[in-house]
Amino acid sequence: MNWQSILQAVAADVAPVVGGGRVANYIPALARVPMQQFGIALATVDGEQAAAGDSHTPFSIQSVSKVLGLTLGLQALGPALWDRIGREPSGNPFNSLVQLEREEGKPRNPFINAGALCVADRLLSAHEDPTKAFNDLGCSLLGEVLAFDAEVERSERTSGFRNAALANFIKSFGQIDNDIDAVLGLYYRQCSIVSHCAGLARAFGYLANGGVQPETGQRIVSREQARRINSLMLTCGTYDAAGEFAFKVGLPCKSGVGGAIVAVVPGRMVLCAWSPGLDETGNSVAARLAMELFVSRTGLSVF
Amino acid sequence: MNWQSILQAVAADVAPVVGGGRVANYIPALARVPMQQFGIALATVDGEQAAAGDSHTPFSIQSVSKVLGLTLGLQALGPALWDRIGREPSGNPFNSLVQLEREEGKPRNPFINAGALCVADRLLSAHEDPTKAFNDLGCSLLGEVLAFDAEVERSERTSGFRNAALANFIKSFGQIDNDIDAVLGLYYRQCSIVSHCAGLARAFGYLANGGVQPETGQRIVSREQARRINSLMLTCGTYDAAGEFAFKVGLPCKSGVGGAIVAVVPGRMVLCAWSPGLDETGNSVAARLAMELFVSRTGLSVF
Amino acid sequence: MNWQSILQAVAADVAPVVGGGRVANYIPALARVPMQQFGIALATVDGEQAAAGDSHTPFSIQSVSKVLGLTLGLQALGPALWDRIGREPSGNPFNSLVQLEREEGKPRNPFINAGALCVADRLLSAHEDPTKAFNDLGCSLLGEVLAFDAEVERSERTSGFRNAALANFIKSFGQIDNDIDAVLGLYYRQCSIVSHCAGLARAFGYLANGGVQPETGQRIVSREQARRINSLMLTCGTYDAAGEFAFKVGLPCKSGVGGAIVAVVPGRMVLCAWSPGLDETGNSVAARLAMELFVSRTGLSVF
Amino acid sequence: MNWQSILQAVAADVAPVVGGGRVANYIPALARVPMQQFGIALATVDGEQAAAGDSHTPFSIQSVSKVLGLTLGLQALGPALWDRIGREPSGNPFNSLVQLEREEGKPRNPFINAGALCVADRLLSAHEDPTKAFNDLGCSLLGEVLAFDAEVERSERTSGFRNAALANFIKSFGQIDNDIDAVLGLYYRQCSIVSHCAGLARAFGYLANGGVQPETGQRIVSREQARRINSLMLTCGTYDAAGEFAFKVGLPCKSGVGGAIVAVVPGRMVLCAWSPGLDETGNSVAARLAMELFVSRTGLSVF
Repeated sequence: MNWQSILQAVAADVAPVVGGGRVANYIPALARVPMQQFGIALATVDGEQAAAGDSHTPFSIQSVSKVLGLTLGLQALGPALWDRIGREPSGNPFNSLVQLEREEGKPRNPFINAGALCVADRLLSAHEDPTKAFNDLGCSLLGEVLAFDAEVERSERTSGFRNAALANFIKSFGQIDNDIDAVLGLYYRQCSIVSHCAGLARAFGYLANGGVQPETGQRIVSREQARRINSLMLTCGTYDAAGEFAFKVGLPCKSGVGGAIVAVVPGRMVLCAWSPGLDETGNSVAARLAMELFVSRTGLSVF
Repeated sequence: MNWQSILQAVAADVAPVVGGGRVANYIPALARVPMQQFGIALATVDGEQAAAGDSHTPFSIQSVSKVLGLTLGLQALGPALWDRIGREPSGNPFNSLVQLEREEGKPRNPFINAGALCVADRLLSAHEDPTKAFNDLGCSLLGEVLAFDAEVERSERTSGFRNAALANFIKSFGQIDNDIDAVLGLYYRQCSIVSHCAGLARAFGYLANGGVQPETGQRIVSREQARRINSLMLTCGTYDAAGEFAFKVGLPCKSGVGGAIVAVVPGRMVLCAWSPGLDETGNSVAARLAMELFVSRTGLSVF
Repeated sequence: MNWQSILQAVAADVAPVVGGGRVANYIPALARVPMQQFGIALATVDGEQAAAGDSHTPFSIQSVSKVLGLTLGLQALGPALWDRIGREPSGNPFNSLVQLEREEGKPRNPFINAGALCVADRLLSAHEDPTKAFNDLGCSLLGEVLAFDAEVERSERTSGFRNAALANFIKSFGQIDNDIDAVLGLYYRQCSIVSHCAGLARAFGYLANGGVQPETGQRIVSREQARRINSLMLTCGTYDAAGEFAFKVGLPCKSGVGGAIVAVVPGRMVLCAWSPGLDETGNSVAARLAMELFVSRTGLSVF
Repeated sequence: MNWQSILQAVAADVAPVVGGGRVANYIPALARVPMQQFGIALATVDGEQAAAGDSHTPFSIQSVSKVLGLTLGLQALGPALWDRIGREPSGNPFNSLVQLEREEGKPRNPFINAGALCVADRLLSAHEDPTKAFNDLGCSLLGEVLAFDAEVERSERTSGFRNAALANFIKSFGQIDNDIDAVLGLYYRQCSIVSHCAGLARAFGYLANGGVQPETGQRIVSREQARRINSLMLTCGTYDAAGEFAFKVGLPCKSGVGGAIVAVVPGRMVLCAWSPGLDETGNSVAARLAMELFVSRTGLSVF
């Protein structure tokens, strides 16, 4: 297929909704991102690339970084990572604290904040310098160190009372080993990673390619671990809209409140779309529609 | 591939765990089913069939019938079915009542009991004789009327206090229109449907074939509705183990406490395995392992 | 003190708020009660009586009947009544189902609906004819059989889905022995008892008099049981406003959505006020204010 | 009555259970308190004092300090204190986080930890030096500055993850104004106050005396505020056993995990008993029994 023309057609079709929704406003650095932006890019396992719109405009990847954290966690600990983190959907956000209580501080999955905090805790135990581990992973995936937005990191830190509540609550069950501030610090650092659509489409190539990064041939995770990550993205990757994504997109996806959505087509490619305006489930309005249109045009759904 | 030999190999490999787990014991009719039984069968969209073990032994399909109910609901109401039923995973069972309260009597999805009761209510409004509707669907799918186990139906009715609690609770929000006893009656009737592995593998062929029953060419649901059902099976079809199934099996599955698991390979086939012993999540120990082994041998996972 | 003039002054002071609030509208028989009514009456342990306003106008006593049910339960079972019913405040109504789940079908106290249903179940086991037991108690307390409002009873029955949900949920834990319909039937019957302020002030005299009915000298419950009932009324008797009542009234109180509030002054008297308009906690606006004014004028608070 | 001989008789009667239960073990400073200790003391509004057992042995007053915090809060803010803190029982501890979520960060009452943290926040805003405010109150009540146990304070701080979770969670709703560490610091400081039975019985005299400290005639709180505190102690002062205390003791009580229980007899006296062993509700086994025996011997219950 002519990926370039498909992405251009998708970009044209979503234009009417770009600027719709609401930008994440819990920190100023996100609140002031102009909403009239949309980018999309893909990278196939065979090395093809295509892009349309603001495909190289940098943005805060936010929760998309949970996939990187999980990748590092599986690299460092293998199956032992799951001793303290579940792998099941969590129902609505309201449940998280009740579930943590009932399940004695074991978060339901690594893509809810509670789970990502536990992953960060494990990375702090496994790596002397976990920020360096993120950077090394960035180099493996993209050939360059990661960029961090210091203002975003600082803002998250000073306004992240709910994350601090989660971390303290989990630690009260003895399920976090490291200092709370260190855990939160690493978590906010990974949330502040900056990238763009073209970069993320390349970076996550290993998830479409059985764990091996297509550009370099380097194994990032095992085939089984890649499948594990993909299945978690499909069942838990898009907040409280995972069921709708499974139906309408039918691909493993991970979204972030910065407006990015990454989708994996197993065996084929990775796709990334971005636009800052969010719907009420915290997913980008335009990026979500772009994913649906792409799948509808190409038939590249797993179902 | 030689499906027959693959199924025989799978049956041989699961033999050591057949008889493990615990049989559903909340009603006598299920509690006395001998545990030393295992069957497996498949039917491809091209008309191939294969089977091994107790593939023609009848059993109570229980919650697998929720797929039939959903199919009838989509046939009768189309998208209006979703006015009163969500399409998202529900987290752990404990949440169901809390979620129903918060979401004002709208169950999270049609595969939890609360959701299936709402589907039954809609079928009662849509069909003068909903049992006949099930039978007509059975004829379309299998060329024969359905068999019901009257003892199972009676037992469910006399011991189903939690289902009665759910139905009354939902009705207190005005989200059930019909008489509670009629709703519960239809629900227990569908739970009491009797079939076998070979039958179920043929019956659900339309889910692997874009909505068209392979044997007859009859359209059962639209292509979009078939995708919807498949995605719901993957995210919500196996109780509190949907995340594990998504990873280890990687196919849309629906299980029942009678010990059956049905799996759809989109575009290819439907598979059904059965063995009465259940694990602590309510899924058959041996049928679950059989699904994992089948996928592992054939690579037929969506991820 | 001159009780008569005190009650008249209270009635005059509450006049401006009579008609405020909202009448209970979940059943027609309650919804059409004229709101411009207010009555108040008291009966001392020494035999004095006083009354003002619509003190002899009959009304549906609703949850005030839970005190009668508890009295019968303690008479029949003694401390064994508490095997299945707790004695602690329950927090807000939202919790009831979650608490029932966590506490395995044991309601928090006999004054929430779940608890009253359990009491009704125990009465069904203890008495061949529980309605007769209520009537016998009525004769002991007032010298006359009770009046029931058949329309209220019927309406409760046909619209009481939430109560039916509670009863079925409790039975699913094995904490209700009798048939659900019988339990609900007795519960709705007791809710439909009709009385008036002067009657209720006399009827509950035993709670102010160490368990002995003042008019007849008949022991109704033990001194200890009377204290138990009073303490439960203070901590749990007025729905989600028990803390406010404890502060502003400072007496054991039980309210009903018919608009009645009964208050016990231990060692002194029983007071009953009534007006149909309810506040958002389900307590009568005018009767509640009347209790506060009475306590403020007389200093008859326990604190 | 001869208070001295009554307290001695009570002390003799509880001797068999002294040493029973379990000492609070979440911090070492509490865990190593010898369990074979029991003290009791009273001080009447007329200036009589009596004591028995280890009535002058110092202990950590822990949650009894919440009454002092509430007193300071009412002094500083009056009714505005209730803008952010409710006055109703909270049900079981499990509910606290769910309730905080539903009630948007407004704790149910000032005697649960969440509520005491909010009080501490308000004191930080109202007083330049809140520790000095506690000390000034101590001087007013006892004629001496308070003693603090620095080790207890330090231990609470380093192990108080659940309190930190609560404080962060409340702040995420904007219901805490000050820095989290400052709020927790003040809270842990007040928990570390050291006193003894004779001291606490004198200190809380104002609650039995309409708000005026009996020894000095100084008004500490208004009459209405004293009633408010007493009613809160009765409905919410003893964790999840408030209903049992209301029945068996029938007096406003506040307990702490250090083993102390303070009880107010309105218009008469304050009583304090102490013994380190706790029952499963967190109340001192022997002090609780002592309260029951005292009430049973003297009839000094409000019911």
